[in-house]
Amino acid sequence: MIATNPELAAALKSILPEEQVSFNQTILEQHSRDESYHDCSLPEAVVFPATTEEVVKIMKAANQYNVPVVPFGRGTSLEGHVIPYDRGITIDFSLMDKILEVREEDFLVKVQPGVTRMQLNNALKKHGLFFPVDPGADATLGGMAATNASGTTSVKYGVMRDQVRDIEVVLADGTVMNTGSLAAKSSSGFHLNGLFVGSEGTLGCFTELTLKVYGIPEFILAARASFPTVDDAVGAVVSILQAGIPIARCELVDEQSMKQLNVHSETAYREQATLFLEFHGNEAGLNQDVKFMEDIVADYRCEQIEFETDNAGRNKLWEARHNLAYAYVHGHPGKKLMVTDVCVPISELAGAILYAREELDALGLPGGIVGHVGDGNFHALLMIDTNNPTEVQKASEFNERIVLYALERGGTCTGEHGVGVGKQKYQEREHGNAYLVMKQIKQALDPKNLMNPNKIFSVKKEA
Amino acid sequence: MIATNPELAAALKSILPEEQVSFNQTILEQHSRDESYHDCSLPEAVVFPATTEEVVKIMKAANQYNVPVVPFGRGTSLEGHVIPYDRGITIDFSLMDKILEVREEDFLVKVQPGVTRMQLNNALKKHGLFFPVDPGADATLGGMAATNASGTTSVKYGVMRDQVRDIEVVLADGTVMNTGSLAAKSSSGFHLNGLFVGSEGTLGCFTELTLKVYGIPEFILAARASFPTVDDAVGAVVSILQAGIPIARCELVDEQSMKQLNVHSETAYREQATLFLEFHGNEAGLNQDVKFMEDIVADYRCEQIEFETDNAGRNKLWEARHNLAYAYVHGHPGKKLMVTDVCVPISELAGAILYAREELDALGLPGGIVGHVGDGNFHALLMIDTNNPTEVQKASEFNERIVLYALERGGTCTGEHGVGVGKQKYQEREHGNAYLVMKQIKQALDPKNLMNPNKIFSVKKEA
Repeated sequence: MIATNPELAAALKSILPEEQVSFNQTILEQHSRDESYHDCSLPEAVVFPATTEEVVKIMKAANQYNVPVVPFGRGTSLEGHVIPYDRGITIDFSLMDKILEVREEDFLVKVQPGVTRMQLNNALKKHGLFFPVDPGADATLGGMAATNASGTTSVKYGVMRDQVRDIEVVLADGTVMNTGSLAAKSSSGFHLNGLFVGSEGTLGCFTELTLKVYGIPEFILAARASFPTVDDAVGAVVSILQAGIPIARCELVDEQSMKQLNVHSETAYREQATLFLEFHGNEAGLNQDVKFMEDIVADYRCEQIEFETDNAGRNKLWEARHNLAYAYVHGHPGKKLMVTDVCVPISELAGAILYAREELDALGLPGGIVGHVGDGNFHALLMIDTNNPTEVQKASEFNERIVLYALERGGTCTGEHGVGVGKQKYQEREHGNAYLVMKQIKQALDPKNLMNPNKIFSVKKEA
Repeated sequence: MIATNPELAAALKSILPEEQVSFNQTILEQHSRDESYHDCSLPEAVVFPATTEEVVKIMKAANQYNVPVVPFGRGTSLEGHVIPYDRGITIDFSLMDKILEVREEDFLVKVQPGVTRMQLNNALKKHGLFFPVDPGADATLGGMAATNASGTTSVKYGVMRDQVRDIEVVLADGTVMNTGSLAAKSSSGFHLNGLFVGSEGTLGCFTELTLKVYGIPEFILAARASFPTVDDAVGAVVSILQAGIPIARCELVDEQSMKQLNVHSETAYREQATLFLEFHGNEAGLNQDVKFMEDIVADYRCEQIEFETDNAGRNKLWEARHNLAYAYVHGHPGKKLMVTDVCVPISELAGAILYAREELDALGLPGGIVGHVGDGNFHALLMIDTNNPTEVQKASEFNERIVLYALERGGTCTGEHGVGVGKQKYQEREHGNAYLVMKQIKQALDPKNLMNPNKIFSVKKEA
């Protein structure tokens, strides 16, 4: 390994308690990767701040020694976001894991960035509240805000950006600011909440988040509906949305992925293109909606629909869905997961999935398609041997074809995973002149390019 | 009047057809004011572009002659947003009023910025769709995006920012860019949609907008509920929200404002603190919700609740509510309207309204309180004689007290009207260091400070 700059090491030790600074090889390695197939790279040091003030001190030291900083949650990113390719300091937020305040009447919660989504939901339960955003991993809320994460519930509740009311941010120069307020809406000044959510650590470190939470619905109904083809399943979703039936979750899992899921989760679900659905509301309203929905899926040759109303059945269903990526990983030891993440207008979804399926079949690599189809977002999951250049090349070309298909139809290269390093090459193509504006903003707020450099885009370091 | 720079005048005439450039005194005067009490100021020229290309040419001329530009919709802003205090060119978008595309399956519509919300809703009706955001005025969608407008429906459907999927923007230097895509969600790069919505013309001119639209609900139920005090009415709203009953609209009108409304709209509604409510959904679900809601309002001493299920009754009810500001204006000839616009966390709403009521009573000026209480946003409407310095001073001090009360409780100085010139003095106090970040972004994207200068904040012009 390359040694840490001794002056920087001394500076970090002088501003933080000894146990909050690490140069240990194992710790460095744990912070050298995420859950993606991207190459690893070791940081020079890992620090574990416990307060905003400590984060400020770390940023000031980074400025003094001109070293980059990478904020790190649980390392569950999927595009290399937290890999310190420029080395420097990785800030691990695991000590900042307190739920600071639950404001029941305001449907708000204030948390430190290291709180995970499951930790939050466990704490909210006794208030009759829940936090809806659910990427597969038990990620930290700071990391989820940094990547604008979403998941199965965004069709009803929105994505991470829709939940963030305020963030305390430590900027590149150590300045502390707040992006918003506690008000439910505001037309006061530029919308910095929106800008910082999804900035992937390139504009600052999040040290506190105020998030919207929701009352646990009076009545929840989950269902699994099986279809002869993916096309029928997608058609059914479009018709359900057109009919104005308010879906809370709406996930497509293809036949290959249902097989993988049954093996991993020890379930015996029908191995066909399947919609995992959920509805939230009051009992009378849901019963009317579900009746209507049953008529619609029948029009799309639905061969079986099974409902789960009790908690245990519902939890099992969603746990199986959430563990699907891990099901692929565990089912293919030695291989790594590559996931596409395009999102297209819903009118283009059936075509996009059909195209992805054909390309996937032609590839000859194990994989399947799952998707948050209510949003037009789907993933092709591919298992590849990253030591086999042919497989890597094939996967990369496949990813590119899927992305270009989406961009040509008004879509985006990443619906929820973010850019990191993996989607950088599509940024200019997707955003055109807006990409230059993004770079101008980055340059204005982080002129020395210290904050997670070379993620989202490459910015030249000042001489 | 001050003459227009003859070279600029010649340049504008050379790039636009003759009828699209005006120096006519009446036209200049029409573009010297908005619907607020703020002082007027004449532009040097008013131009009426018909295409994005013409807007680009205008921006290039503005750059060449170093003159400021003010984008102008219908002039219905309430904080002086469109008043050209630095003179220059006002761009009136009334010729760019085409609905370009309705994508039914995607629930999207593409419009030019001069389309008004009522024009859009008339066109959407035949598709079974509607656009929810409804400020009182029939504003243009470009203007509504510029101020992040909202209205009675944001408690269910969100504010203008939540509806904007993409904007074509002409930047200060004439570059054309797009802020988003057609995808329902994206984690690709910085969220420029969010940044540009609410930028009040300070970052660029909007030349095309792609907006979310919604299916007209299967069943709509409106109600008027009368309470002995404002406090009871607010308490009822908080309890309805706590109970998880999904409200689509939830407006408070106080006793004084009900009187004004009855005179103006020729209605005979009970002159008490009143909630105007609306619920959207399916019939079975709404019936269950409404039964629950009736129990709740009874707990808050509701003295009368009347339902409107047919279109005519509902339309009359909401028309009366929407015309309330005009009711005050018409009821006080010679006076002008000053409106506060704070938004507070819902737990602070009852206290904030009580405080505003007491301050209003102490003032001795005609006025009332109305509010989008489901969001924690309320307005104190005051009628003042702008030629009477004592009244202006009183109103200004009143406004300041209301704002400071809100800011001390985590609120915002403006929930939906925007900053313009009227709320500038509170920006630093509300945003702290974030205000400096906003200035850095403005400086980066508009270094010559040509785009609607000295709105939101004052930026020094480069030497």
